[in-house]
Parts: sequence; structure tokens; C-alpha cells
Amino acid sequence: MDSEKSESRQLNGIGASAGIAIGQVRITDRRRVAVTEVLVANEEIPGELDRFTRAIERAKGELFALREQLTATHGPEHLCVIDAHLMLLDDTMLVGETTQYIERLGINAEGALKRTLGRFKAFFDGVDDEYLRERGSDVETVVERVLRHMVGQKQEPLDNIEGKVIVVAHDLSPADILQIDKNKVMGFITDLGGKTSHSSILARAFEVPAVVGLERVTAEVREGDTLIIDGATGVVIVNPGAEEFREYLQKKQRYEYVERELLKLRDLPAQTLDGHRMRLKGNVEFIEEVASVHKHGGEGIGLYRTEMLFFNRSKLPTEEEQFEAYSALVKKMAPQPVTIRTLDIGGDKCLTDLDLSDEMNPALGVRAIRLSLRQPEAFKAQLRAILRASAFGEVKLFFPMVSGVAEVRAAKAILDEVKEELRGKHAFDEKVQVGIMIEIPSAVVIADLLAAEVDFFSVGTNDLIQYTLAIDRTNEHLSSLFQPLHPAVLRSLKTIVDAAHNAGIEASICGEMAADPEYLPILLGLGYDELSMNAVSIPRVKKILRRCTVQEAREVARKALSFATAAEADAYLKGEIAARFSESFD
Amino acid sequence: MDSEKSESRQLNGIGASAGIAIGQVRITDRRRVAVTEVLVANEEIPGELDRFTRAIERAKGELFALREQLTATHGPEHLCVIDAHLMLLDDTMLVGETTQYIERLGINAEGALKRTLGRFKAFFDGVDDEYLRERGSDVETVVERVLRHMVGQKQEPLDNIEGKVIVVAHDLSPADILQIDKNKVMGFITDLGGKTSHSSILARAFEVPAVVGLERVTAEVREGDTLIIDGATGVVIVNPGAEEFREYLQKKQRYEYVERELLKLRDLPAQTLDGHRMRLKGNVEFIEEVASVHKHGGEGIGLYRTEMLFFNRSKLPTEEEQFEAYSALVKKMAPQPVTIRTLDIGGDKCLTDLDLSDEMNPALGVRAIRLSLRQPEAFKAQLRAILRASAFGEVKLFFPMVSGVAEVRAAKAILDEVKEELRGKHAFDEKVQVGIMIEIPSAVVIADLLAAEVDFFSVGTNDLIQYTLAIDRTNEHLSSLFQPLHPAVLRSLKTIVDAAHNAGIEASICGEMAADPEYLPILLGLGYDELSMNAVSIPRVKKILRRCTVQEAREVARKALSFATAAEADAYLKGEIAARFSESFD
Repeated sequence: MDSEKSESRQLNGIGASAGIAIGQVRITDRRRVAVTEVLVANEEIPGELDRFTRAIERAKGELFALREQLTATHGPEHLCVIDAHLMLLDDTMLVGETTQYIERLGINAEGALKRTLGRFKAFFDGVDDEYLRERGSDVETVVERVLRHMVGQKQEPLDNIEGKVIVVAHDLSPADILQIDKNKVMGFITDLGGKTSHSSILARAFEVPAVVGLERVTAEVREGDTLIIDGATGVVIVNPGAEEFREYLQKKQRYEYVERELLKLRDLPAQTLDGHRMRLKGNVEFIEEVASVHKHGGEGIGLYRTEMLFFNRSKLPTEEEQFEAYSALVKKMAPQPVTIRTLDIGGDKCLTDLDLSDEMNPALGVRAIRLSLRQPEAFKAQLRAILRASAFGEVKLFFPMVSGVAEVRAAKAILDEVKEELRGKHAFDEKVQVGIMIEIPSAVVIADLLAAEVDFFSVGTNDLIQYTLAIDRTNEHLSSLFQPLHPAVLRSLKTIVDAAHNAGIEASICGEMAADPEYLPILLGLGYDELSMNAVSIPRVKKILRRCTVQEAREVARKALSFATAAEADAYLKGEIAARFSESFD
Repeated sequence: MDSEKSESRQLNGIGASAGIAIGQVRITDRRRVAVTEVLVANEEIPGELDRFTRAIERAKGELFALREQLTATHGPEHLCVIDAHLMLLDDTMLVGETTQYIERLGINAEGALKRTLGRFKAFFDGVDDEYLRERGSDVETVVERVLRHMVGQKQEPLDNIEGKVIVVAHDLSPADILQIDKNKVMGFITDLGGKTSHSSILARAFEVPAVVGLERVTAEVREGDTLIIDGATGVVIVNPGAEEFREYLQKKQRYEYVERELLKLRDLPAQTLDGHRMRLKGNVEFIEEVASVHKHGGEGIGLYRTEMLFFNRSKLPTEEEQFEAYSALVKKMAPQPVTIRTLDIGGDKCLTDLDLSDEMNPALGVRAIRLSLRQPEAFKAQLRAILRASAFGEVKLFFPMVSGVAEVRAAKAILDEVKEELRGKHAFDEKVQVGIMIEIPSAVVIADLLAAEVDFFSVGTNDLIQYTLAIDRTNEHLSSLFQPLHPAVLRSLKTIVDAAHNAGIEASICGEMAADPEYLPILLGLGYDELSMNAVSIPRVKKILRRCTVQEAREVARKALSFATAAEADAYLKGEIAARFSESFD
């Protein structure tokens, strides 16, 4: 009775986009393109070079066609996805290095391209920043596209799919996600991918359930198998038994009920039982996500990451390109405010003229505001674009990775220069608020000094926790040391908000702690004014907020601060707090 | 008049061992072994494998002979240097990977070995830890030795040298430094090397002036050229003019006069004008350095780094090996105390079964106490060896990279187990003091909680500054951000010592800030009880200490803490303080 098919089994991947989906397997890319590296004779080298060039050209042709099609169906907003891939196909390193492997080492075209991919991967895998590391999968997607053309393998486009299916693929590119018709595709699962990959972000924005990083799922399921996927937990059940089927059908109904109920909170104020308001906003990096912020009742955008504009390009984006992107997003969000963060990555050195020499990693130390201050022309172009966008809605801007007062003063001096240049030429908000990310331990220690220099603080809890606890890498071996409730983290969060309020400025949180309803009572109790998170989390956080009183939250914060270890604080929160709010956490 | 030879010119390297030396160029290794990678025919592969194996065997034979010779001349203390190189020649990765390059890719033996070296280098260059990174040069030295045997190049041993010369080499191994006869070799300069390389450490211990990291100096000077080298500043003058010659001769005399004068401080107490005592100790990692601690008046060893015992080995050192090393050093320093730090690197995963796969870097996150707690058997062996050494002199022990209370409690629980195991079997100090390094920002934030758990704090200022300011890498582009006088650093130093004293325990500093006499007034004024540094710095620091009053130092510390930026604090210290103590800083 327990199962109707003997082969019912469970796989575990990374939950990339919440929601439960049930459907038939539809494999769109059965195998990774198999590549063998072989040495070719000297006289074959020109032929291999030619094969490589032609495959690149075909991949470009395919992407241009897709671009046309998407423009027709989705409008011009999503083209950056395709453009990023197109630019990669012109990348000096991708093309140049592959050519060299063919010419100098006499390796066949596929093998040479695979070697180049290996170098890209080694680079991205070595990168500290999880976000940047995930960008490596864009390179992989593009390379696979070229390899398919070399070996003559076809890939069926996702918009041809019939029936209610779960797409199973080695990997799906952001362009693939854009092609998904939600009436036909219930969800997708892939071998590759991570939680912060571009495709996963889009899946969340479009609310398509997804499990990624399953490693070999394309080899483990067959066309026609029945699948249940749980995009929250990463569980995939292949050919579920009757019992499992009923269980997940109930979970799915429950989930969808809760989601509908949560969406009813959309237009209710984000305030406590005793009337204390706390602003809840969305974090975005693509304009596609703005709709989700609206849908989930976000009161604006608390963190607009500008990195995507700079990624996978051989030249920096111009002021005009940036202005178009920022102003489009600001208009779409208006009249609610958009807080734009200046570039938070290693900029052109790391991202465009990708220098993959042996010494590549050290260069990553120069990032974010440190890089911007060293490249004032690029920084000014970004500031001009942000200021010009402020004519179209409420814009605030802030600087990442600030470690001291000197950096803030230098950045603000450049901002003043830029304002002077713009006056009389372009409209902008003269009183645009200027803030900083608090994510480096030194910024916490001197939060009082920094508060005197800026209009607001925004705490990046992910980096703050990593730097405070000296966890060098997002690394499975260290995940147990990533402790938001470590007493040093809680004390730091208190130091920051107290310093802000003493100086009469506001403090918000835009890291992952803000999105976890479990931490809401602590963050409210500490006095934070605003939380910014992925849009879908807003209703859950709002729900808990609306059941708290400020008094109660202060007591939780006080108690959480009293423990000597993260484990004790965790046990307290999981026990007492879960008891108070249990049903609210569904 | 200004110069007698027109080709007088200056080169700039890294000052590795202070002191000025003047002498004739003696090139011992004119060129790096030139290696060309070529593909060989299939039938030549066995011959290449054979060449590789024979070169390895010859290099081993040479090292065994050197080992014999050094045992006769220097005693058994220095053999670890040779043993580390011998072990590398048996390294699975070095031999295995080279063999694979020959067999699978059909590359000639030299080219294959050079590729393997490239992989090691890429690994070490990517490592955060400067100390560990410098260990990469040991691998390079060993590989060069093997390459010389392959191409049939001979290297003249350094003990054959006649006359007063400055040795110019591509690189010098620690074994080479041990062979130096100070009556003949005035100093040395090399293309390769860094300030913390094993060779540089030994040069400082033996007080041989040295400049390293000159990149191409072996190609830029000729046999018979006259050289002036300044091991403090890294300046090398080739064929100096009369004026330069006089200038440096004066500097040399002045330096030697100051050194002699400073050594007179050896037996004077380390105390302020108003009688406040501050203990000044030495940092060591080799037993050879103990003599230098004695010579410079160190009151014990405040930091004995145990990493060298673990490096370049395919198996962990046994408890007995460790006991021999620790007890030899403790005996040599007795009756003065030795503070032993437990392993501060990535242990066997990073160091022995060197896993140079693409994912290698992330593993480095698990290091120091985090690693020890995950490998309790290896940790226990080290603790047993340390405890047993405590029967031969005063020993304290401390744990590196502590981020929270839970780690300290776990480490102390293991120490208690080990004590129980030892009781009745081996003598040890039941009351051995247990401390922790404070070098992670979270440890500063909860210093009050940690002080309740341990007997002393020792501040590692290098890592503390890096983590506090989030300088990810020791990177030339970030060196301007490495700011010991950043207000966040000074406030942290105050928090630490205040927390220690409130709990009735002592606080010391064992990072580089302790060795810089300029910072002495601040550290004294903040209330630190002990400073530990490289031995040669002790007299300079003591000299300033003996000219301060506690009152004055407190005022300097208070004032330094009042600035919003490191630049302001620096200007204050350079101005006012330099004025007070100017002639003392010579």
C-alpha cells in the first residue's frame, strides 16, 4: 500500500525557489555535452580553429534570434540576460585562450574550450563572494551552448513544451527561465546551479518552484517519471508512492493557502500590535523583480544591487546605459523609494579584463568602495547616473564595504564634485540621502564616528557575520560557524542601531537576517527602522511583525543578548519564541 | 666627483635582515635553471620518467650529505630544515603529478616538473596567510635542486667561499644560510624570497644582512661588482660612487654603534622612568632563534609558533617528535617562560595531502583551533607533547583563531582529558596557564566573556587589523589600508586590555605592532602587560620604554584614541611623539 511503484526515491538538492510542484519529467537536455581532449596533428589545427569560430558564430546567431523573440514576448526589460551572454562570446579571454590552446598545444577545439572553461571555473570557485562565484555558471552556460554547436547537439527551446511538466535539465540559463510558460511548466530541477545564480533569482521573481544543484539528476530520472519537487527544502521525490503523493499534495495545498493568506497582508500596514511602524522593503538586482516587490507589499527597494550591469563585459557600462537601467527601475517603483548601492565588486579588473593569472585572487581585496575610490572616473559615471535617476522618483544611494571615516569623506567629496558637474545640465534630487553599508567590523567599532558623516546605515548581515567571525569563505566546513546569534554579532547589531539613533539617523538591515521571520523580534527589539529582503519573504516577516508588541520584542532582544554562546541564544529563540509565535511560522 | 664609476645604480628589494654590508659580488647561481616544455614522442616517455627519478635520487643524496655535514658543524638542532626538503622529495603530489604530466601528456621531465611547481605556486600564492604563502618558496628551492640535476648544472656550496663577499643568488635555501661563514660572507641578496621566508628568518636570527625579492638581480650584477646592501630598507647599490660609499660607511658605523649600545640594554630592566615593569619577550619558530632572544635580553618567549613541525610532511609529526622539539626549546630558554601556540594552519588537509584541486582554497577556512577541534586526535598529541615539555621549564599554552566561548570550552575540555591521560605516566605542570589569541573581531566584541574562561590574552595585531578592516589579502594594493592607528583598531586594543584587567588576567601583544618602538607609548598607555616580538627589536623597544613615564604614555594613548581617522592619529604620533623621543628612534 505504501508505494505503488517500487522505485520511489528521494533526491536532495538546493531549494532555489519555494513552492511545491507535481508533474511529469520532461528532460530537455539529457546529457552534459561529452568532451574528450585529444591532441591533433599540426595540419589539423586550422580546421579546429575554424570549428571553434563557427560554433561561436552559431551560438551568437542563436542568441540574437532569442533576443528578437524575447523582445516581442517580454519587452525590452530582459535583454540584459541575453546581452551578457552575447558579450561573453566576444570575451578576449574566452576566445583568446581557447585559440591559444588549439594553436600552441595542438588540442582539439572542444578540449581547448573545456580547458578555458576550467580556468574560468577555478577562478570563480576561488572567489570569496558567493554572488560573484555564482556568476561563473553564466560562463558555463555559454560554453555549453558553444560546445553543443561544435558537436552538433540540438537543444529544444522551452517554449515548445506541451502538458504540465517539470523540466529536468543539466542547467537552465536565465534566458531559459524567461521562456518558461507557467501554464505548462510546473517547476524545474537542474544538475547545476546555486541559490544565488541568476536563474534561481529569476525563478523566485517569477515564483516558479525550483530545485538546483542536484548534480546528476538528468541521469537519474527518465522521461515520463512522476516528480514531486519542494523548492523550499530542495527535496525531489521520483515516482512517489501513494502516501508520499497525498502528503505532498496536502503540503502543496497548505503552501498555496498560506501564500494566498500571506498575500492578503499586502495592503495591511507593517506595524506591531501596539502601532509601531517598521518599513519592509525588497532587495532586487533585476528590474523583473520590481513586480514581485509590488505584489508582496514591499514599501520600496531597500537594496538595489548594481553589479549585474558590470558583469560579463569587456567595457564598463557607460553613464547613459546605467542611467537608463536605474531610471527605468526608479520609475517602475515610484513613488516608493529605491536605495541604490554603488558597485560592490572588483570592477573591471576582476570582471572584464578577467586576469586569470596565478595571482588573480589577491586582486579581489580591492573591491567595492575601495575600488571606486581608485577609479574615480568610473565611480563618477555611476554617481552621475544614480543622481540623474533621482529626478524620476525617490532615490537614496549608499556605499558598500566602508571601513572608516576617511573613505566616506572621500566618496562624499566625489559626490559633491559630480553634483556640481550636473547642476544646470540634468535634473536631480539635490538632497539625495547618502548612506553606508555597515558590514566590516571596524565600521561597527566606530559606528558613532561614521553616524556623524552620513544620512543612514544599512547593515549587510552576511558579510558582517563573516568578517566578525573571520569565516574566510562560504564553505560547507564552516557553515556551522556562521552564527547570526553569536553574542558578538548581536552586540554589533545593537552597537550599530544605537549609534545611528544617538546621531539621529536611521538604521536598516538588508542582509539575510532581515528575511528570516525568526529574527524579526530581535531586530525589532534592537530598534531597527527598516528591513529589506527578497520580496517573497516580506509577507512572512510582516505577519510576525503584526503579532509582536515592541515591549515583547525588546525583552526578546535583551534576553538573546545575555547568552555567552550562539548555541544558547539559538535554543532560547527556538524554544520560547517559537512557542509564542509557532503557528505564525508556517 | 660624485661617482667614480658611471654605472653606479640603485636596486630596491625587500629588507629581510637588518644591517649594512659592503663587499664584492659573488654570484653562486647565475641563472635560474632554464626549462623549456616540449612534447616528447611516446617511445621517449620511459626515458623521461627515468630522468626524473634519477634527478630526485641525486637531489636526495645531496641533501643527505649536507645533513651529515651540518650535524658535524652545527649539531642536531638544524636538521629540520634539511628534513623538510627531503620529505618534499617524497611528496605524493610533487612526484605523482609530475609523473602524470610525463605519462599522460607526453611532456618532457623538466617541463612536467615545472608544471607541477606552477600548481604548487598557484596554490601558495592564493593562500591568505603570509607565513604559509612564503612556505611555497621551500617547494621552489627543492624543485630547482632537482631541475639542476636534470640539466646537469652544478651549484657551488657556500662554505667554499673565499674573501669578504656579498653572495648574490637566485634564491638561497635555509640550508644555504646555515652554511654561511660570517667571516667570509658579509650579507646576501636574492631574486626570490620574502620577509617571512624561512631563509629570511634564519638570516635575522644569525644577523646576516640580507635583501631579498630583487627579482632579477642575478642578471643585473656581475662578478666583481662592488655592492652596498641595506638590509633594513631593502636598498642595494651597485658600484657605489665615492659619495654613496662614504654615506653608507657612516650609516654602517652608526648602525653598528647603535646595535652595540642597544645590546648594553640587555641586562637593564624593562621598565619606565617611574618604575613600571613591562615584560619584553621574543617570538620564535626555530630553536636557532633562542640564542638571539638571550642575546637581546628577552625575558622569555611570548610566542612559539609550532607550524614548522607540521609543514612539508606527508604524515603528522608524532607526539614524541613534538615533545622532543618543544622540550629542547623549553630547556634552552629555562628558567624563563615559553608560551607555546597550538597549530595555527590548515593542518594535514592543506599541508600534507596537499589537495590542489580547483576547490582547494575554500578548505583554508578551516584552520587553527577550528581544525584542531575537528581533529581531536592530532590536537591531543600536540597538547600531550606541550604538557610533557612543561616538566622542563615554565610553559604556557594558547589557542589561535578563537572566535567564541564555545571553542574555548571545547579546547579546554580536551586539555582536561589529556591531563587525565598523562597523570601517573608523565610529569607535567598541573597548573599550566591557558590563554587565547585575540585576533578575530568577535573575540574583541566579547572579550569580557572570553576573559572569564582563560588565564591570559595575547593579541595578534596582524590578523586583528586585517580582519577588523576586512583586508582580505596581504596585497600591495591594500597596504595603505593596513592601519594600526585606525580608530577601530585602537579602540579594539583598549577593549581587550580593559576586559582582561577587569577579569584579573594579563594581556600581551605578539603581533608586529609590539616590535615597532613608535607604538610603544600607546601600548604601554593602554595598559598592556607584555610585548613579544622578533628578538632583535627588543632593545629598541626597551630603550623607548625606559624613557617613558606611565603617565605620559596614558596621555599619548588617550590622545591617539581621540581621532576619527588613522591619518590624523598617524600625524599626531609622527609629530608630537617623534619630537619627544626623536633620538631614541635611531
